[in-house]
Amino acid sequence: MLGHTNYGEAEVRLLRVARGPYHHDIVDLTVGVTLAGAFDVSYLTGDNTNLLPADTQKNTVYAFARDGIGSPETFGLRLAQHFVDSQPSIYRARVSLVECPWTRVGGHTFARVEGGLRTAAVTYDGSHAWVVAGLADLALLATTGTELTGFIVDRYTTLAPARDRILAVWVDAAWRYSITTAEPARWHRMHDRARQALTEAFAGTDSRSPQQTLHALGQAVLDAVPEAAEVRLSLRARHHGPVDLAAFGLDNPGVVYDPSERPYERVEGAVLREGAPPAGLAWSIHPAV
Amino acid sequence: MLGHTNYGEAEVRLLRVARGPYHHDIVDLTVGVTLAGAFDVSYLTGDNTNLLPADTQKNTVYAFARDGIGSPETFGLRLAQHFVDSQPSIYRARVSLVECPWTRVGGHTFARVEGGLRTAAVTYDGSHAWVVAGLADLALLATTGTELTGFIVDRYTTLAPARDRILAVWVDAAWRYSITTAEPARWHRMHDRARQALTEAFAGTDSRSPQQTLHALGQAVLDAVPEAAEVRLSLRARHHGPVDLAAFGLDNPGVVYDPSERPYERVEGAVLREGAPPAGLAWSIHPAV
Amino acid sequence: MLGHTNYGEAEVRLLRVARGPYHHDIVDLTVGVTLAGAFDVSYLTGDNTNLLPADTQKNTVYAFARDGIGSPETFGLRLAQHFVDSQPSIYRARVSLVECPWTRVGGHTFARVEGGLRTAAVTYDGSHAWVVAGLADLALLATTGTELTGFIVDRYTTLAPARDRILAVWVDAAWRYSITTAEPARWHRMHDRARQALTEAFAGTDSRSPQQTLHALGQAVLDAVPEAAEVRLSLRARHHGPVDLAAFGLDNPGVVYDPSERPYERVEGAVLREGAPPAGLAWSIHPAV
Amino acid sequence: MLGHTNYGEAEVRLLRVARGPYHHDIVDLTVGVTLAGAFDVSYLTGDNTNLLPADTQKNTVYAFARDGIGSPETFGLRLAQHFVDSQPSIYRARVSLVECPWTRVGGHTFARVEGGLRTAAVTYDGSHAWVVAGLADLALLATTGTELTGFIVDRYTTLAPARDRILAVWVDAAWRYSITTAEPARWHRMHDRARQALTEAFAGTDSRSPQQTLHALGQAVLDAVPEAAEVRLSLRARHHGPVDLAAFGLDNPGVVYDPSERPYERVEGAVLREGAPPAGLAWSIHPAV
Repeated sequence: MLGHTNYGEAEVRLLRVARGPYHHDIVDLTVGVTLAGAFDVSYLTGDNTNLLPADTQKNTVYAFARDGIGSPETFGLRLAQHFVDSQPSIYRARVSLVECPWTRVGGHTFARVEGGLRTAAVTYDGSHAWVVAGLADLALLATTGTELTGFIVDRYTTLAPARDRILAVWVDAAWRYSITTAEPARWHRMHDRARQALTEAFAGTDSRSPQQTLHALGQAVLDAVPEAAEVRLSLRARHHGPVDLAAFGLDNPGVVYDPSERPYERVEGAVLREGAPPAGLAWSIHPAV
Repeated sequence: MLGHTNYGEAEVRLLRVARGPYHHDIVDLTVGVTLAGAFDVSYLTGDNTNLLPADTQKNTVYAFARDGIGSPETFGLRLAQHFVDSQPSIYRARVSLVECPWTRVGGHTFARVEGGLRTAAVTYDGSHAWVVAGLADLALLATTGTELTGFIVDRYTTLAPARDRILAVWVDAAWRYSITTAEPARWHRMHDRARQALTEAFAGTDSRSPQQTLHALGQAVLDAVPEAAEVRLSLRARHHGPVDLAAFGLDNPGVVYDPSERPYERVEGAVLREGAPPAGLAWSIHPAV
Repeated sequence: MLGHTNYGEAEVRLLRVARGPYHHDIVDLTVGVTLAGAFDVSYLTGDNTNLLPADTQKNTVYAFARDGIGSPETFGLRLAQHFVDSQPSIYRARVSLVECPWTRVGGHTFARVEGGLRTAAVTYDGSHAWVVAGLADLALLATTGTELTGFIVDRYTTLAPARDRILAVWVDAAWRYSITTAEPARWHRMHDRARQALTEAFAGTDSRSPQQTLHALGQAVLDAVPEAAEVRLSLRARHHGPVDLAAFGLDNPGVVYDPSERPYERVEGAVLREGAPPAGLAWSIHPAV
Repeated sequence: MLGHTNYGEAEVRLLRVARGPYHHDIVDLTVGVTLAGAFDVSYLTGDNTNLLPADTQKNTVYAFARDGIGSPETFGLRLAQHFVDSQPSIYRARVSLVECPWTRVGGHTFARVEGGLRTAAVTYDGSHAWVVAGLADLALLATTGTELTGFIVDRYTTLAPARDRILAVWVDAAWRYSITTAEPARWHRMHDRARQALTEAFAGTDSRSPQQTLHALGQAVLDAVPEAAEVRLSLRARHHGPVDLAAFGLDNPGVVYDPSERPYERVEGAVLREGAPPAGLAWSIHPAV
């Protein structure tokens, strides 16, 4: 018995250049396509009549880029709608996009800057489109103003309550919009606001736990972007413990820390706007059972 | 408004040594814990009364390893049950495990071998436990016996039908058991059978598409392991195109190929046993909405 | 017979916080130590009398950070001198440092930004110290102004001469100073100048080959930083080929490109100042034979 | 002033299939080419008359694979000789090869197994060829029989002498041959012997330090492979510390360990056969100055 299935071309790399008279602009995208539809016969018997090859999906991504990207969200919308609307065997399409940021260093030269990747994911089922925007791997660190106290103490507890500790989190954030169509400019503006809200909320929050920080970040995005209905956040908090220098006759009054990579704490949560519309297919190509 | 939340310690690394009179045995595990429960107050106000710190979870993993691992599945069961049964604020726990294989080269010496990692995930809600076992990153390659023909041709199609091509897939497989308790030995035996079934099914299947290969792999696990109720598979098929050597006056009759890393095709699907019990929390700590 | 040997602690992670009244500053370093000396007896017989354990080296890095970093160069100097001057069995020490950049987003909050990592390496032999500074993984891209023509054509050539192509290079640069001591401030200033020179030279060079670009980058560093005696560069040039859209009835006038990750071209070279002092141990803890 | 330069195509991926009547054989190689020669004019003026494009080098790798690989060593020899002998502007060529192992699971199906990658590097200068073979990332672990005592104790020492500890090393080994030509079969046999010698020496050595282990490994390769003149080894020793379980009322008699990834100790050394010929260009395309 076959359950949910889907397939598609993943990690199509793409650089688009807009050549103006005075300077060039570039967009560097990695695009993934996922399709759901009448594919059971291909899984069960190898009859591929209903399959649009992954190779064709890649070609389509490149061909559509010829006419412009606009924003990750609009490019994803065009592609998702094309796959579903052009092939009766494709019921739903999900297009995931990651934008690599480059900063201008000349009229036609650029340097790559990494500090959180812009992401988007668009799902379309033939009648409705769900748009999710986000940021991946945004690293934020606070040297004070965060504590962790009052937690459960059991037989396996060795952690001491901390009144002032370092909080370093790698943030993946994604928010779904209650709108699905908009002028191209708005996607950029909404994303800029969300990114700024995340950073400012982190800087402005005295945190009693990574959990509280997560909620503050989500709340800030909802406040800054009225079109956002729900924010999902995943924080990887990497322990930065003060190094014990006593053996060397030295104190360590919050000066030297050992940033450890693993294990780390993963904190996840969703923050929803009161009265938000249901998520539908915003987060997955398959409806929840 | 707060939606689903969870948190926990991720990627706890652990080596356990059993020191017998004639030789030693080792188990190399990476363990992750995810908890769901009465944590809203921590997210909303920073009141951590109900939080079991991630650091304590790490300690617990190490302490429980003292008495033996048994198998990833039994170790996960013990840990998941402990967290839920010992703390009223923890409603559900999910423990994920990845085992790194080492092969014996002497009585107490070992060499690391990578060829698909053994995985397990156990979810427990206080009354029921769901056990999933699996393999990650198992790479399989066939030099003949696979084709891709009869697919949709549209405006963006350039792929030619292939009667005989190379199929190279990186397989992630996970199967949920309809049983939740068993003698330790059985978990190993069931896993061995599933692994062997996956490899043999790949070797024994003339494939008309990666989709058909996926179904054959899933079917083989269900056939080999009666305790498995459902298999979920994700295949990354990496294109191995024949290199065009005509410009150099050479033919290339299926000899020289260019293995590309991306883009790649991702093919996913679930294969269920007729009459399988519902998945419950086998795949996620949060019930589907 | 034993040839050259060396050992040391690698990848010590370190965050140092300077807590001022109004704002904090942080330095995020990864430090590696390599030692050469009278260690043969340890290799040959396991007599460790002359070995300073790697664990002690790690402790030393943390202890020395207590009093301040200054710059990667000065911190490396202090450490290298300590190891050689405090232990008769240690003849030479090399300290390698990589700084992870964080940008301020609040008085005591920071976001990680990557756009080329700052590196340094200091080698000391008891009487002389050699200081190398550098940048790793600086990605630069030009959408026009670069060509590749006039190259050798042989039986295996399929590449057409390109009058206008995309050049994307990942740059590792390191320059050795003819000075070995300086006020702390100068190391920062020299590094800033070198970084700026690299970027501006890339933006300002119409390139006929990656080789020519490499030389222009090296020349620019020597021009901008009089204290630099030699620049060593390694460029990974990743092919960005225009996608052929003709099959879809589309032209592609320099718009859509496929950035490939491998293979890539690696171009390396050294640019020296006329009359530069010999390299000595700047590049390696072992003298050239 | 221009110093040493070189360039070439890196990481060319290649799968070669030999299709026999009863079963197939595959070789999975990653090949890199580095060339040195009369390239200064290209660096200085962008005159590319003397440059063989990296793209052509890639084509050459694929074209040469058409007629068979033989072994990484013989394939590297053919390529290196071709580049130097066919182009007067190319004075020296170095070809580096990494073989990814696949194990047979059927007549024409294979599974990837990693347990140390086979490497080779061939350098040719028009009259002489130097051949280096090796293994990369071979992980070996001993649960007993290794100690570390008698080392230097200074102000920064906290490490206690260990009579019985875990030793886990990731080994990169490379040995140069005093021969440069041989029947194809010999390269495989010599490599097999060296690999076996490394593993057996690790299993058979009670080690008083990673340095002593390194020497034992090198010595074993020289003993097992008379054609090897020098072995260079780099060991990354990853600390596996016993976890302190006393806080939980548990002892830990060598049972539970925490494998840490960094920092780690890097130990390097060369072991030479008495009367070995000089290294020449075995280790680098540029002669030592």
